[in-house]
Parts: sequence; C-alpha cells; structure tokens
Amino acid sequence: MEHLNPEGLRSPPPPASLGQEIYALAERLFPICRSITGDGVRQTLDLLSGQVDLQRHEVPTGTQVFDWIVPKEWNIRSARIAGPDGQTVVDFADSNLHVVNYSVPFKGTLALDELRKHIHTLPEQPDLIPYRTCYYAPAWGFCMAHDRLAKMPDGLYRVEIDAELTYGSLTYGEYLHRGQSEREFLLSAHICHPSLANDNCSGLALLAMLAKSLKAKKTRYSYRFLFAPGTIGSIAWLSRNEDRVHLIDHGLVLSCVGDAARPAYKRSRRGDAFIDRAMAHVLGREAGARLIDFSPYGYDERQYCSPGFNLPVGMFQRAVHGTFPEYHTSADNLDFIRPEHLEDSFRILTEVIDIVEGEWTPLNLFPKGEPQLGRRGLYAALGGQKSSGATSMSLLWVLNLADGRHSLLAMAERSGLPFRELAAAARLLSDHGLLAEAAPRGQPGINLD
Amino acid sequence: MEHLNPEGLRSPPPPASLGQEIYALAERLFPICRSITGDGVRQTLDLLSGQVDLQRHEVPTGTQVFDWIVPKEWNIRSARIAGPDGQTVVDFADSNLHVVNYSVPFKGTLALDELRKHIHTLPEQPDLIPYRTCYYAPAWGFCMAHDRLAKMPDGLYRVEIDAELTYGSLTYGEYLHRGQSEREFLLSAHICHPSLANDNCSGLALLAMLAKSLKAKKTRYSYRFLFAPGTIGSIAWLSRNEDRVHLIDHGLVLSCVGDAARPAYKRSRRGDAFIDRAMAHVLGREAGARLIDFSPYGYDERQYCSPGFNLPVGMFQRAVHGTFPEYHTSADNLDFIRPEHLEDSFRILTEVIDIVEGEWTPLNLFPKGEPQLGRRGLYAALGGQKSSGATSMSLLWVLNLADGRHSLLAMAERSGLPFRELAAAARLLSDHGLLAEAAPRGQPGINLD
Amino acid sequence: MEHLNPEGLRSPPPPASLGQEIYALAERLFPICRSITGDGVRQTLDLLSGQVDLQRHEVPTGTQVFDWIVPKEWNIRSARIAGPDGQTVVDFADSNLHVVNYSVPFKGTLALDELRKHIHTLPEQPDLIPYRTCYYAPAWGFCMAHDRLAKMPDGLYRVEIDAELTYGSLTYGEYLHRGQSEREFLLSAHICHPSLANDNCSGLALLAMLAKSLKAKKTRYSYRFLFAPGTIGSIAWLSRNEDRVHLIDHGLVLSCVGDAARPAYKRSRRGDAFIDRAMAHVLGREAGARLIDFSPYGYDERQYCSPGFNLPVGMFQRAVHGTFPEYHTSADNLDFIRPEHLEDSFRILTEVIDIVEGEWTPLNLFPKGEPQLGRRGLYAALGGQKSSGATSMSLLWVLNLADGRHSLLAMAERSGLPFRELAAAARLLSDHGLLAEAAPRGQPGINLD
Repeated sequence: MEHLNPEGLRSPPPPASLGQEIYALAERLFPICRSITGDGVRQTLDLLSGQVDLQRHEVPTGTQVFDWIVPKEWNIRSARIAGPDGQTVVDFADSNLHVVNYSVPFKGTLALDELRKHIHTLPEQPDLIPYRTCYYAPAWGFCMAHDRLAKMPDGLYRVEIDAELTYGSLTYGEYLHRGQSEREFLLSAHICHPSLANDNCSGLALLAMLAKSLKAKKTRYSYRFLFAPGTIGSIAWLSRNEDRVHLIDHGLVLSCVGDAARPAYKRSRRGDAFIDRAMAHVLGREAGARLIDFSPYGYDERQYCSPGFNLPVGMFQRAVHGTFPEYHTSADNLDFIRPEHLEDSFRILTEVIDIVEGEWTPLNLFPKGEPQLGRRGLYAALGGQKSSGATSMSLLWVLNLADGRHSLLAMAERSGLPFRELAAAARLLSDHGLLAEAAPRGQPGINLD
Repeated sequence: MEHLNPEGLRSPPPPASLGQEIYALAERLFPICRSITGDGVRQTLDLLSGQVDLQRHEVPTGTQVFDWIVPKEWNIRSARIAGPDGQTVVDFADSNLHVVNYSVPFKGTLALDELRKHIHTLPEQPDLIPYRTCYYAPAWGFCMAHDRLAKMPDGLYRVEIDAELTYGSLTYGEYLHRGQSEREFLLSAHICHPSLANDNCSGLALLAMLAKSLKAKKTRYSYRFLFAPGTIGSIAWLSRNEDRVHLIDHGLVLSCVGDAARPAYKRSRRGDAFIDRAMAHVLGREAGARLIDFSPYGYDERQYCSPGFNLPVGMFQRAVHGTFPEYHTSADNLDFIRPEHLEDSFRILTEVIDIVEGEWTPLNLFPKGEPQLGRRGLYAALGGQKSSGATSMSLLWVLNLADGRHSLLAMAERSGLPFRELAAAARLLSDHGLLAEAAPRGQPGINLD
Repeated sequence: MEHLNPEGLRSPPPPASLGQEIYALAERLFPICRSITGDGVRQTLDLLSGQVDLQRHEVPTGTQVFDWIVPKEWNIRSARIAGPDGQTVVDFADSNLHVVNYSVPFKGTLALDELRKHIHTLPEQPDLIPYRTCYYAPAWGFCMAHDRLAKMPDGLYRVEIDAELTYGSLTYGEYLHRGQSEREFLLSAHICHPSLANDNCSGLALLAMLAKSLKAKKTRYSYRFLFAPGTIGSIAWLSRNEDRVHLIDHGLVLSCVGDAARPAYKRSRRGDAFIDRAMAHVLGREAGARLIDFSPYGYDERQYCSPGFNLPVGMFQRAVHGTFPEYHTSADNLDFIRPEHLEDSFRILTEVIDIVEGEWTPLNLFPKGEPQLGRRGLYAALGGQKSSGATSMSLLWVLNLADGRHSLLAMAERSGLPFRELAAAARLLSDHGLLAEAAPRGQPGINLD
C-alpha cells in the first residue's frame, strides 16, 4: 500500500498575492444582483468558472424538493422612486440592496404615508441601507438610508419596479475534485446574496480559489465544492443527492471569511465529528479564535445538520453573522473585507485539509519500553540537556500512543502538540521501521476514530 | 391519543394574595408545640386539612419500622422554672422552645449548679433560645437565652415539667392527587418542629396550598403530599409503603421556603434524575439560585435516598439549613418569613410541575432539511432581519432535535431556551402536523429520558 | 474472614529524626560517581543494603533487552585538564560532574580551540558545572563552570581521562516485601546519576528507608523496591520480568523528593488508575500540590507506561525535573535538599500506602432508611445541634454509599472527606454489625473499582 505523505498536500507558502487574488475575484462578484434564482446566480457561476470548471444545474420552477417547491425565477431590470418634484429618490442602479429581493413588479403613484409601508430602514444606523428579502410572499419594497427617508417631503411618489417572476429554474454549481476514495469532503457557500462583500462574495471567491488549488493535487478524499442559493439551494441539492450523502465524511459551510475578526468555527450538530475535532485543533492554535456550539440558526449547516441527515458539517467564518454591525447592510462592502484576512482564512482551511488527508493510526512495532532512538540517529546523542526539542517530544508521544487506538489527531489532542509535528514524527518513525499502520486506510473514514 | 397541553397545568398568575394566604396558614401553625409524636402533630394536620383533605395515619408505639421502633408518644402540658425568690424564670407558655423536646416529666428543686447541666443556651447569640431535642434518651432540659441564664443568682430553683410519655402512636398525614397515571411525584415536609417559622411552618403551609391548587386540575402524574415527622416519620412511611415506592418517579422534600434567600436545590443521591435536571433548568434561570450536590445530612431526603431505596428525591429550600444564624433558634419566627418569598417558592414548584407534566419526546415528520415554516404562517414572511425572536429559535431547535432521542427537557438543556418556550413551539408544530410523538406517553416515566 | 485494619499500617508519627536519617543516607550516597553501569552503582547498592537486604542483579554486556543492548561497563579512575602553565584546570576528583559520563579514555594535548569542542558549560549559569552523558556514543568531554572556561588562556592543554569501557555488566538491586497477596506495588528510583543530591540521592535514600519501615509490617500487597539505572535499567528489569508485570497493581517512580517545592504527582499513562486516584486524593489535601498529566518525557515511568506494558505507574516528585534552575547542575547539591522535605515526602508515600492497603468496599446491611445510630451509641444523643462533626458525617456518608458499588476511595472522592476518616467510620460501623464486605478481598485489586 502506498504511504501517503500527509505533508505532500500542504500548499507551499501561498504566493504573496493569494489574498489579493481572492479579493480581486470577490470584487468582481460584488456588483452582481444575486437572489435565490435568476441570471445573477448564473453570472456569478460564470465568473467562478474562470477559476475552476463548475458543473451547472438547473432545477425547474415547481419542482418539489422535500418540503419545499422551487419558486418562480426572479429577475429585475430596474427600480426607482421619484419624488413629488419628479427627482429620483432611490434607484436600484445605485445599489441592488435598494429593492427588497424578490419584489413583485409594480408601477404606481403613492402618497408618502402609503409608500412608507413598503420602505425599510435602519433607524439606529441611519446612513446604511438594509438588506431585505420576500422570497415566498407576493410583496414589494424598497430599502434605504433612514436619514434619506426622514428628509422625504409629503406628496405623491412615483414607484416603478421592473422585475419579473417567471417559470424558470433555480441554479447551482458544483465542482468535484476526485481523490483516491469516493468518500467526500463537502465545502459549501451560499450564492444568493447580492452586493454584500463579506456575506458572501468572500466565501464564494475563497472556495473557488481553494478548489483551483486542489486541482493539481492527488488526495485521498474527494472534495465537493457547492455554490448554491441559501436554504432552498442546499435543500434542492440534498434532495437530488440523497443517495450519496452517506459518502460525506466531513463538511464545512463558508461565509463571512474576509473581515478582520478572528476565525470562528461553529460545530456540527454531532459536536464531536472528525471535522469538529480537526477545526478545534487548528483554531486551538490561533489566538482569539472561537469555537461555537451548533445551533439551528445560521447558514446551510441548518439543512445539512437537519435530523434526517445529521451530516458532519460545521461552519467556518470570521465575524459571526448577525453579530457585527455591518451584517446585512450596505456597510458590508468591499472595504469591509481585506486580502490578508481572506488569505488567513484560506490558510486555515488548508490546515484542516492537511489533517483530513494526513490522518492515520500508527502501531508501534517496538511497544515494550522505548525503542533506542539514538542508535537510529533519531535522538540527540548527548544526554542530559535540560529540554528536548519539540521534535523529540513528538517522537516520544507518537511511540507512546501508537497502540492502535490513537490516530494522529487523537495524539495531537492528548499531547497538545501540533498535528503537523506529530505527522512528521510518525513519518520519520515509519521510515525507520518502527511503526506500521494499525489498519489499512484504503477507505478514508475507516480508520479514523 | 389525547394530546396533553403542557401549559394547561400552569396556574394563571397567582392571585396577589397567594403569598399572604400561605403566610396566614404558616402563622396559624406557628404556635403549636409539635414533636415527632403527640397531639401537636394532630392539631397541625387538622389545620392543614382545612386546605386539603388529609388522610391521617397512626403508627402505634412499639412498631418496628426498619431499624427503628416507634417511641412512646410525648405530650406536654406545662413547664417552668421558678427562682430562689419564687418568681418564674422560664415558662413553656412563653415559647415551646423553652423545653427540650421529648423531655421526661420532672419535678424537683435544684441548686443552680445542678440545674445548669439541664440548661441549653447559645453563648454567641445570647438573646436567642435554642431548639433542642432528646427523642431517644430519657432526659429533660430547658433552653433559654444566655443573657437570662447569666443573670440567674445562686440558690435553689424549683423545676416542673408536666409532660407524659405514654403508649400511643406516631401520626402522619398524606394526600394523594390522582392523575392519569399511578406513577407519582412525592412532595414531603417534616411536621415535627415546634415554633420554628421557616423550618418548617413555611414548608407545611406551602405544601398544603400547592395540594389545594392541584385539586381542580387534570394531571398526568399522581401527586402524593406527605406531612410526617422527620426521620422516624419518613422511615415509618417508607416501611408501610415499601411495595409502592417503585411508583415514585420524582420527589421533593420541602423545608425553609419562606425566607429572603434565593432558592436552592439539593440534588438527589442519583444526581441526574429527571427531578434534578428539571430543578436545574428552573433554577438556572433564577439569578442567585444555588444547586447543591447530594449529601447524607439534611432532611428526609436522607431516608428517601438511603441506598436501599435510592429514590429520585431532591430537596428544595431557600436559606440552607444549618447555615443561617436564625436556624434552630427563636429567631426563626414569623418575621423571618415573608409572603413574597413563600409565593416565589410556590411559583418555582409550579414551574417544575409544569415540566414534569409537559415533558414529551417529539419526532420531526419532515426531518430532511427544514420544513417550510413561512408557508404555514409559522415564520416571519420577510427575511433578512438581524435576529429571529425567541419563538422562531424555539421552533428551529425543536425541529432540529426532534429525532426521537431528545425530550423537551433535553432540548431545553442543549438549547439554553426555557422549557416553556420549547413546549409552546412543540405544541404549535404538532398542531401543524410537523411533529408526532416518538413514543406513546400513556405511562409517564416511560418516554422520559 | 479476617478484618484488616486499614489504620494498622499507618506509621506512628515519624520520629523527629526520620528526615535526618533519610538525609544522612543521601549524604553518604552523594559523593559516589554513578553511571548506568559500573562500580559506583555497586557501591550505592552496598550502602542501601545497610537499610534493607537488597537482591543484586548483574546483566552482562551485550545482553539484548527488548530493543536495547546492554553496553560495555564504564569505570573511571581519574580525569584532568592541565593548562599551558602545567596547572590543573579541571579535576574529576573535585566533582564527578566534571567528566561527561561514559567518556571514552583519552590522553592527549590540544589547542584551546580544539579542546573547547569537548567542553560543556552553562553560559546562563556561569558558575555551575552542567551534568552531561554520552552513554551510547564513543565520545569524551568535560563539564565546567563557564566563568572558568572564559578565563582559560590560549595555548596547549594536556587532557587525560583514565576510564575504561569493558565487557562487564549492568547492575540493579531490588527488594521484595511480601504481603498476603502476590499482587504488587512497584516503587522504583533511578540509580544512575552521580553527585546530584535531589536527582536522585533523595529518591534512593527515601525508598530504602520506606522499604525498611515496611519490614515489620503485615501488608495485603507485596511491595517491590527497584533501584536501577534510568531507561536501560528499567528496560532490563521489564525484559527479565515480563512474565510477572501483570502482578503490578500500583506503581510509583520516585525522583527529586528532597527539595522545598510542594509535592507533585504525574499521572500514569492510564490517567485513572487506582494509584492516580489515590495520589490525587492525598495531594488534593496538600496546599500547593500539583497533579500533572502523563507525558512520555521524564523518568522510568516512560518505560513502565510504554504501550506494550501500560502499567499503572505514576511519578512522585517535588520540584519538577527540567523546570528548576538547579536541575542537572552542580547546584543540585546537599544544600538543595532538606530533612523536613524528605520527611514530608515520606509521609505522603505512607498515606498513599495506607489507602492502597485500607481500600475495601462495604455493604450496608440496613440499607432502608438510616439505621438508628443513637441506639448504638454512634451518634450524639441530643438532637438539634447546628452541625454534625466530621465523624458523624463520615458515618452518614459510608452508610449512604455502602451499596456495594462504592469503595472507600470512591466514597472519599464523592464526599470530599479524608479517606482516613471514612476508613475509621467504616471500621466502626463494621464493628457494630452494620456493614459487610461487598466482595471478598483476598486478592487485592479484585474489589477495587
């Protein structure tokens, strides 16, 4: 059996420009008016396909996906409010947040009082435009800065929303990087938000770049990248892939990965899945990182972790959705995300992939007493020093715990040493004939504890 | 199968006078000279029977109850000490704490030095009368303020205790509120203390009022209220009901429930019984409340939790016995307990009963992805708000955890949401056909985890 | 069945001179130049045999012991460096730390630059001589104060190491105190360090005195005392006793037991072995004591806890090796250890032995309700006092937990009371016919949970 080198997968230190590359892609995604259906999603997938060859799926309006029905497709051309003086007060062309997403077409003249019922503002953030949707209700509305609304004089306002709701389809894209095994690591990002940079142009761009970075690599696991509209999109995907979700050994939902907050991981519903332990190990070494227990409010982990699936899918982000003031407002713009934070998120994901790929369970072939490392050149020849370097400690820990019941990740958890060091130590010991594999690992997931 | 409404049991907000009612009853109980046997116990049961129809039991002197034998019955008419000048120094008529409880009859004249051996005071609380007993020893004694003793001049004192120890019986009372099931919730308070208001006129009065409040209600569980002398009383009850203690699914001992301290719960010996979890949930939402591990020192939970029974019985109180300065002294008087604290204790007990009654294990009938709540009017139609209200969170949690392995209390423990909200959410989801019962709950206790 | 008195083993308060006795023995051990083989080890065993009759073992050079081969025996007569002026710069006669332990014989003249490659100093502790070894490399070297090295002028130095490496043997000693059972408590100290007082003259002396103190005692367990060179010595012992290590129920490695630091215990690899729990109980009552998780770096617990054995062996010490500035330097001298600390370590070990010997699992013969302690004179006859003394609490805890599933140590862990008090309570209750043994304890280890 071939001995996979767990380091073989590690990306070389990312080029100085990786963060900029991800940022540049997010920047191109930003202006598009996306929704849960429509041409904005297709344009987004086109852009992402520039990085990696996405397979596009169209699910027709009216299709039953579990408890849901794919709605009519929504597209919008323009929308505006003109004031009593005929001047434009709000224009969709300025920001696609100005229109409540999925507004029905409307044309009419309303008194301000009547119009106000259709206008959403944030009185406590009076200069920001909120983000609102009405996917499953036949409504329409505008979002605007509260300050601007406050200055609107009484009178008649001309409103026009040139949108359409038609029999069409819901669109999602996916890319499968095939590994040695058909068992999968699912990485999923929602594609339905319009001009919100962190939530989730950042996740879309980062995921596309990550998929691209795997292309040239030989991996144990297969990696599935899913770009789908939130909720209905992941539900549609689950509905059409119900027979193969049992292949998913690990999963991550990505959102808000470009801001300045420290990385955060929300555990899967299981709480102790391998992905939960691997993320805890990686974030345990990042100052200020946060681990959050599962809750059924958030992004598409809600669907993957619904009780009928209960998949081992957690969520990675930086600023936690719903808790930062820019969330779902026009302040979640391209200034809110930075190349260095995108690159940092990328690095963390590659570390987790390194663990998923590098995990195995060694068996000490010389388990009675310590084997003599010095004779094999694995130990400083001169004894008595006050401390052994980290590498020596890694060798000792691996030998001590290699009883066939501790995987490398379990060793990392018990020893407090980085997985990377233990993996290197295990490889070195293995090369010197001191370790065997406790069980074949042809199928990933089999010898993971 | 009938769908029990877990809220159906909740008392409407107690009338403004509930605390006063409990207090008034405690006030009437206070002056009676109780002991582990005797007419004081019977008078107390008479008074409590004004609230709820108690069944009275008499266990004859000499009856073997496990390792114990019911002692002779003790009754006292009067007791006094007269000084060298003939003036009364101590009179039982002033306070029934003045005589050591269960003192044998005595008449004689003693020098102060000799008398002192029979007098108990609290030198560190010199103005208070201590409470002392000598149930199983043929002794006699007086209790008095240390200050008073210090002023007693040398000389001869005339002592008279007009008490009697006769072949009689030990008395206890019980009331059974029958529910749908014969499985029981045992609520027990000791009835043996004389004029100590918190310990335990408060517990007796509160328990009688709680029994009264259940009378008109239809419950799943049967509720047994036991008013028995401490230690020997609960041992006698256990001895006479040994064949039915297996019916007890939950139990609480009550004492000291009228003072200003924050509520406290002492866990059962098991530590993780349903009652332990339910009390932890309720007190977890009360600022300053305390959870205390089981120890074999306290009230009758000692007997219920003896290893031969190990019943799921905890103890509820406010100030923890033995830790407040008024404990077992004349300062535990009617000023020490207040209507508002009695009412607060009552409220907490009804919340626990609501949990015991309202507990069930739902099964999500649409477990793959989330069901579409908006279509059913269960969710705000307009998406994108920054936060979902508690009700939405309750709906999502119940749906997510309704895999047949989480009862409502388990959901409350995991989500951190109030049981009440989750029960309301489960009822709403059930009414919309989204939930079924994971298992029939004809017998309470069967589907409780 | 004989009722073992768990207190029977407790030493009477050690004589005022016990610490001095241990110190005096350490003092005699200090000057000897020990190594992993050689006459220094034999002289040390001779001295220890003055306390207890050690069995000496010789394992010939070339013997395979698991992955290791016993090396040639090393003995040294003298070693010195003379400077350009002919004056002696460093002399082994001044301190046996001056020569790298296991240096090959050497005679020659070197320029300072060349000599420096063979000299070890501690630049950050410039007045101290470090301790260095080269057991398995054909090297030689000197250790000296950095200050002294700094003052050495350029020029030619005459070096002479009069040592020899010959076909001989590795020596270790052991003493077995036979108890009622052949099951064993292993106590092991490394004998290979030269003039380092705490590490490990202190451990050797204390262990010899502890063995001596057991001689007159009748114990349940057998106690094996092992004085062997570090690493290769314990590996040799394990190799020659492989068929009987299954008899080891408890074990402790001792080192650094004479300094002023508070006691520390490093758990066995198992982490929850009886010895781990017993040490945690004893140290839990010592202010400032530390419990440290197992790691595979330290002393011979590394070998006993290697995965092929995984014995329940922890390590007891005061200052943790490698963390105090005197460690492995000439400052670890006879001023660094004190009689009172040696005595304190001795006391802690006897407390642990008391637990190992006194452990049993009682069964309450009156498990329904509390038995009436007052009638048996086991309880204050006069009730109502504010608090029960510790002894009453011990009686109540033992009765409550004596369900056959709680050993005395488990009771100590749950109640927070000292093992000693619970053992006394159990004996008292047993004497009054209230307790039986839950299971025969002919074989120690059988009824330990």
